[in-house]
Amino acid sequence: MEDREYFKKNRERFVKEWSDFLAFPSVGTDPDHRADCIKTAEWLSAHLSELGFDTKLLETPGLPVVFGEWRSASEAPTVAFYGHYDVQPADPVELWQTPPFEPSLRDNRLYARGAQDNKGQVWYFLKAVEMLLRQEELPVNLKIFIEGEEESGSTGIMKKMNSWQDELSSDVLMVCDTGSRMKEVCAITMGLRGIAGLTVSLSGPRTDLHSGVHGGVAPNPAGALARLLSSLHDQNGRIAVSSFYDDVEPAAAEDLAAANSVSIPDEVYQELSGVLPRGGERGLTFAERRGFQPTIEVNGFHSGYGGPGMKTIIPASATAKISTRLVAGQEAEKTLNLIEEHLKDNAPEGLQLTISDKEVGGPAVRVPLSSKPVQLAREVLTSLEIGEVELMWEGASIPVVTGLARAAGAEPLLVGFGLEQDNMHAPNESFDLDQFEKGFLYVSAFLRRASELSHG
Amino acid sequence: MEDREYFKKNRERFVKEWSDFLAFPSVGTDPDHRADCIKTAEWLSAHLSELGFDTKLLETPGLPVVFGEWRSASEAPTVAFYGHYDVQPADPVELWQTPPFEPSLRDNRLYARGAQDNKGQVWYFLKAVEMLLRQEELPVNLKIFIEGEEESGSTGIMKKMNSWQDELSSDVLMVCDTGSRMKEVCAITMGLRGIAGLTVSLSGPRTDLHSGVHGGVAPNPAGALARLLSSLHDQNGRIAVSSFYDDVEPAAAEDLAAANSVSIPDEVYQELSGVLPRGGERGLTFAERRGFQPTIEVNGFHSGYGGPGMKTIIPASATAKISTRLVAGQEAEKTLNLIEEHLKDNAPEGLQLTISDKEVGGPAVRVPLSSKPVQLAREVLTSLEIGEVELMWEGASIPVVTGLARAAGAEPLLVGFGLEQDNMHAPNESFDLDQFEKGFLYVSAFLRRASELSHG
Repeated sequence: MEDREYFKKNRERFVKEWSDFLAFPSVGTDPDHRADCIKTAEWLSAHLSELGFDTKLLETPGLPVVFGEWRSASEAPTVAFYGHYDVQPADPVELWQTPPFEPSLRDNRLYARGAQDNKGQVWYFLKAVEMLLRQEELPVNLKIFIEGEEESGSTGIMKKMNSWQDELSSDVLMVCDTGSRMKEVCAITMGLRGIAGLTVSLSGPRTDLHSGVHGGVAPNPAGALARLLSSLHDQNGRIAVSSFYDDVEPAAAEDLAAANSVSIPDEVYQELSGVLPRGGERGLTFAERRGFQPTIEVNGFHSGYGGPGMKTIIPASATAKISTRLVAGQEAEKTLNLIEEHLKDNAPEGLQLTISDKEVGGPAVRVPLSSKPVQLAREVLTSLEIGEVELMWEGASIPVVTGLARAAGAEPLLVGFGLEQDNMHAPNESFDLDQFEKGFLYVSAFLRRASELSHG
Repeated sequence: MEDREYFKKNRERFVKEWSDFLAFPSVGTDPDHRADCIKTAEWLSAHLSELGFDTKLLETPGLPVVFGEWRSASEAPTVAFYGHYDVQPADPVELWQTPPFEPSLRDNRLYARGAQDNKGQVWYFLKAVEMLLRQEELPVNLKIFIEGEEESGSTGIMKKMNSWQDELSSDVLMVCDTGSRMKEVCAITMGLRGIAGLTVSLSGPRTDLHSGVHGGVAPNPAGALARLLSSLHDQNGRIAVSSFYDDVEPAAAEDLAAANSVSIPDEVYQELSGVLPRGGERGLTFAERRGFQPTIEVNGFHSGYGGPGMKTIIPASATAKISTRLVAGQEAEKTLNLIEEHLKDNAPEGLQLTISDKEVGGPAVRVPLSSKPVQLAREVLTSLEIGEVELMWEGASIPVVTGLARAAGAEPLLVGFGLEQDNMHAPNESFDLDQFEKGFLYVSAFLRRASELSHG
């Protein structure tokens, strides 16, 4: 039976199972959802067992990694797959049209937190593998790693991966956690940025102070934090943290040329995101700013009064969450330390600076154009005729990918079918069923030919 | 019976009645508490009637003003009193040791929202008047105005006051809504700052955006608002809004000398407030920065994620509340317009700036040293031996005072007994019963001699 036919016949079941997966509120970053995450891992592990995998939960200091192994009869190459079962927090929940953990199918899209990132993409991968196993067409050894802390920095798996040499050892590390800029395109991701983050607070006043009695006398934590955060960039949007760019590897001319060849008109970007692409450093192209330049972003800022009317106070404290995206060459911990130094050096007199929740995600990924898995994926995607094949240097991060690929001795291969419209990390996340099918077709076709990837 | 003796005998009743007044959650700024505010006004009006006043509620577009009038038999001067029955919001409620609207007496302090500001100070005024009326010792005509919108800019009374010429006409306008820097001091307030405020928002992204996919491309409302707010001041803490200081009247040398003669050591200020007095413009004295310089303060800033862990987003929007304190010469509306212009002129490309909730409080008050009521108050306070008499140029605002004094043709007289420890506008507000008694003694003694204030 042809793969498209198989998909059509099983589509309803796929959506049903995928919905069951999405119904678990596996918000890995929130301690209140720890039990939900563990239930998700156990359910997933049971599912892999049913498919024929040897499974176990790999324990970490945080949430467990679901591990499954299937051995081919032959001395075939080994393919590893990495995905994650945790999802972003669902708040603000009031902006969801249907509840985030009650999957809802509308207009050929499945809506739920994690519908795309990453449960949806994990699901087409597993369903493609299921088909190949049922049809006895899987010519390679397969190792599955699905973790529960990707949205919170993959700290557990990062700490333990070096002790899992046997489990990890493989030739190629497949990841389906990326996307393309539009439905007509299939993207192979050649680069991902690294990530790290921290929380910074300024405090001082014992309590909120009267802004008249104390205005002009007491330093204002909200105003001072605004000033401190604005010192992270210069007037041109370039990061102003000392030594920040020292380790940045300049983009190879051929990479940059390939990246710049895909242009996104302002109107298209604005339609997708709501804003014109005027962020980042002035004078650089869209593709360069996203794929080859680091960032520091304010993810949240909270201080003082936010209710109706005026409340004339000097807030007792102000807190911001900031994260940084790294490019090739930059080390996450070192970069985070540079930011911390900058904040300390520029802290206002009279207030107390506190840095907390430092999270060292991981470094960037940059795959060479000569990579064998990339070349095979290009062939497979082209032959499927499911979209124009494009190489992409992404702005997003999968912190664990570089580390896992190194520990596994494998070449990373990043192909995913997410779209901007999926609202990843935002209310009303969803995933297009056509994209789900494309993922299924790609994984099936790639794995069928993966025996061509010789060892080493 | 001597006033102190009278106070002692009636103290328990005073606290009981004052507590009844405090139990009304009259948060004037919050529409949800409108009914509570009206109940408070009605209760207060009934109390004034019981004391012997002719009373009525003066309607405004907002909350009513409680008005009471008592006519002396003689052709005596007329004293007006201004106070307010509305209180600041009580949040964050979880920081209160006892509920904000269940008054609690501990260590000679009454704790409740409004305990001092302004219900406590209104109450000793009324109780002193009650005593004088019972003892037939009130030698002047008395007019009472107690409004419900002081904490939200006195907008109602400001709009209507010019149509209340008959009600307002008086020789001196007494206000007991100020304080002194410590218990050992009785302060006459010679200056108050004016106030105005607005809410500023930046928006653009249709929803929170993934900080990896969009970082370096989409402009970040949180980071941009931080930058915009920090542009309001220069590196020395001086306001950087164009033309902002044009109308500022420089302080008279004798005023400034008197203000500077009262010095507050850093340690004392830090103990009171929690911070060193490092706010405001560098190079100016504490007294000058508080009493003679305008400010712009961030009262609140809210954007993006503030929960546990990381959430790597570019927030869809960012909102800040800012207020400005004005000094003599500055007009509130004009000053607010200058700030609005500045925000518009410096708005970041690609994001939408929204200004809302513009509130024009009122201008500053500066009383001349030659004022007759001030001279009488100095004599009375000195003779009572309840503390060293000091002249103060305050940082706080009572927006309505200048307007009312003008409309009444009266000289303002600002004497109050608040202390820093009262936590005005903050959780666990309270008022010291010794200070309450001092207020009672001052009002009694001043009104007994107020016939000395000749007309004109």
